[in-house]
Amino acid sequence: MWYVDEERLEQIAIGAGILGTGGGGNPYYGKLHVRRLLREGARIPVVSLDEVPDDAFVVSVGGMGAPTVGIERISRGDEPLVALRALEEFVGRRATHLIPGEIGGANSTRPMVVSAMTGLPVVDADGMGRAFPELQMDTFSIYGVSATPAALADIDHNVVLFPRLADALTLERYARAVTVQMGGAAGYAFPAMSGAEAKRTAIPMTLSLAAAVGAAVQWARSEHADPVQAVLRVTGGQVLFRGKVVDVQRRLVAGFARGALELEGLGDDRGSRLQIDFQNENLIARRDSEVVAVVPDLICLVDGTTAEPVTTEVVRYGLRVAVLGIPAPALLKTPQALAIVGPAAFGYPNVAYRPLPGVYGGDRLAAERAGG
Amino acid sequence: MWYVDEERLEQIAIGAGILGTGGGGNPYYGKLHVRRLLREGARIPVVSLDEVPDDAFVVSVGGMGAPTVGIERISRGDEPLVALRALEEFVGRRATHLIPGEIGGANSTRPMVVSAMTGLPVVDADGMGRAFPELQMDTFSIYGVSATPAALADIDHNVVLFPRLADALTLERYARAVTVQMGGAAGYAFPAMSGAEAKRTAIPMTLSLAAAVGAAVQWARSEHADPVQAVLRVTGGQVLFRGKVVDVQRRLVAGFARGALELEGLGDDRGSRLQIDFQNENLIARRDSEVVAVVPDLICLVDGTTAEPVTTEVVRYGLRVAVLGIPAPALLKTPQALAIVGPAAFGYPNVAYRPLPGVYGGDRLAAERAGG
Repeated sequence: MWYVDEERLEQIAIGAGILGTGGGGNPYYGKLHVRRLLREGARIPVVSLDEVPDDAFVVSVGGMGAPTVGIERISRGDEPLVALRALEEFVGRRATHLIPGEIGGANSTRPMVVSAMTGLPVVDADGMGRAFPELQMDTFSIYGVSATPAALADIDHNVVLFPRLADALTLERYARAVTVQMGGAAGYAFPAMSGAEAKRTAIPMTLSLAAAVGAAVQWARSEHADPVQAVLRVTGGQVLFRGKVVDVQRRLVAGFARGALELEGLGDDRGSRLQIDFQNENLIARRDSEVVAVVPDLICLVDGTTAEPVTTEVVRYGLRVAVLGIPAPALLKTPQALAIVGPAAFGYPNVAYRPLPGVYGGDRLAAERAGG
Repeated sequence: MWYVDEERLEQIAIGAGILGTGGGGNPYYGKLHVRRLLREGARIPVVSLDEVPDDAFVVSVGGMGAPTVGIERISRGDEPLVALRALEEFVGRRATHLIPGEIGGANSTRPMVVSAMTGLPVVDADGMGRAFPELQMDTFSIYGVSATPAALADIDHNVVLFPRLADALTLERYARAVTVQMGGAAGYAFPAMSGAEAKRTAIPMTLSLAAAVGAAVQWARSEHADPVQAVLRVTGGQVLFRGKVVDVQRRLVAGFARGALELEGLGDDRGSRLQIDFQNENLIARRDSEVVAVVPDLICLVDGTTAEPVTTEVVRYGLRVAVLGIPAPALLKTPQALAIVGPAAFGYPNVAYRPLPGVYGGDRLAAERAGG
């Protein structure tokens, strides 16, 4: 067990921004909220999956909505807690642990807010190892954890409960429709699972990974080393392309930021172009029409010099960026997972998933922990 | 107390169609369902408001959706029961009585379906005395019954609970969004209220009124009398216009059938035109641009010869119709009610509500019952 302090918080926010793969919402406001709670004396314990008892009652909490809304509309921050309390009341059991639904973006910080308010430990794991645009795209659902009961709460503490739905995709549809009515942003509490289920389905060590990414970036910046290379050392990725953004197309469709962007190569990549399609998160990167990376592998835009993440909501003409390709967690590469988060599930039925080489940083950390 | 038998069922369905004021959904499928249950031996007791104990637990059940969908998509019919069971489970109390949310259209029959399946009595009253397009437009909400907790269920028995929302309008927005995701049709259970609240807020004797309208129409048809005049005797209304439909404009917007239709006068009305705007239900009738009736008064199109209701979903060029103007129930004419169901609430801020003369049939029946 370890505790989140201000330094770790800062590192997690940096790492979560990069792992957001262009989406996931900005962790900045969540970070400020957690920092305030820490300064008021809150403690945020973090436990590894192997420290969670099998009969624990683990609940995923976070926020859902379109990132474009997230920028404009600042939540109260207690919506996920209101949703959690409603879920607990409904099932008649109090949560023993919190777990992030996605480590990428804003949902990395929201369980910490709830932890600071409740004292509940946060599990060092999540359901995506990155960010995805839809909630059924988590390993909890993919590996059989029931999506319901589930709860949503809005800024006015309106609560909607989903006691029993056919599947996670139905929850995604119903919850997304409610979220739009809630002004485009809601706090959620789901799924709820046993400790044994969390151990079987969650992607391990991803809070540690985010913190390690952030620490590496901080170190490189302070030592005048290359922050981009620092990120790659920790995450296990490679630079796919370096270039300048020359075109951005973006529209808000049914609560999602969809679009595409185009880069013109610089340095070794001069003369080539890279096109990236996104739905909140970056989905596919094509270099001169040839696919060089595709979901579930992580495609991350970062500032070419500082490694600051460049999200799909702020990317604009003229930015000079590095495009990173980071291998997906092992739990996202099984046939079962690829059916939900592979290229075909995102509208690319003719694109085969050819995994990027290497091992996802969280998997490496988990192997190291298991090994000694 | 009385029991719904096949004859009364037929009459209620005829009356509910007319009281639907163009919308409310077709009671036909509900009628078939209730008839089958009656033939299988079900009993459907109906009690008056004065027979409901103050401490009763009265729940409104029915269906929500766009009427245009209702025609195409036949529900299983047990969705409101599934919603009721979910609501009962959530609050930890079983319903003692059912009450229709709206007597107009399909929601007249749905409480009877649930009654036949559960044995619970149906209260001879409702929340609208007609049909309205949005669920916060009922006298329960208008006079202070909490809209939540509330439950929705779909054809696959997916359930959504609304434990606590700011108000009925918020419920309308959230439930409507979920209903669209549910394929455009859902069963509902809300609001739940005490017997005392039902007595204070419900529009009395409206099942009896629907049955009386249907009986009068049946009698007139069999006796070669004028069914249109028979309707007016029972409901307390007048013929506003007789004419031929010469234009219909209709579109489905956010789950509502919106539009307008135009009639060319026949007989005494030759040379005049009548225009009617609708949002599921008929909202306003203008004769040569002058308002002759407006919500909450009932504007009902019926076949000029048979008094068969002509709903906004089936109205078409060439139909010869009588347009009836029926005075609204007293509970819809208070300033409190007009703020929710008056002309301004439907987008006519410059139209004053000038009530049609006469007394709503249900109010007359209630006065007669109270008088002896």
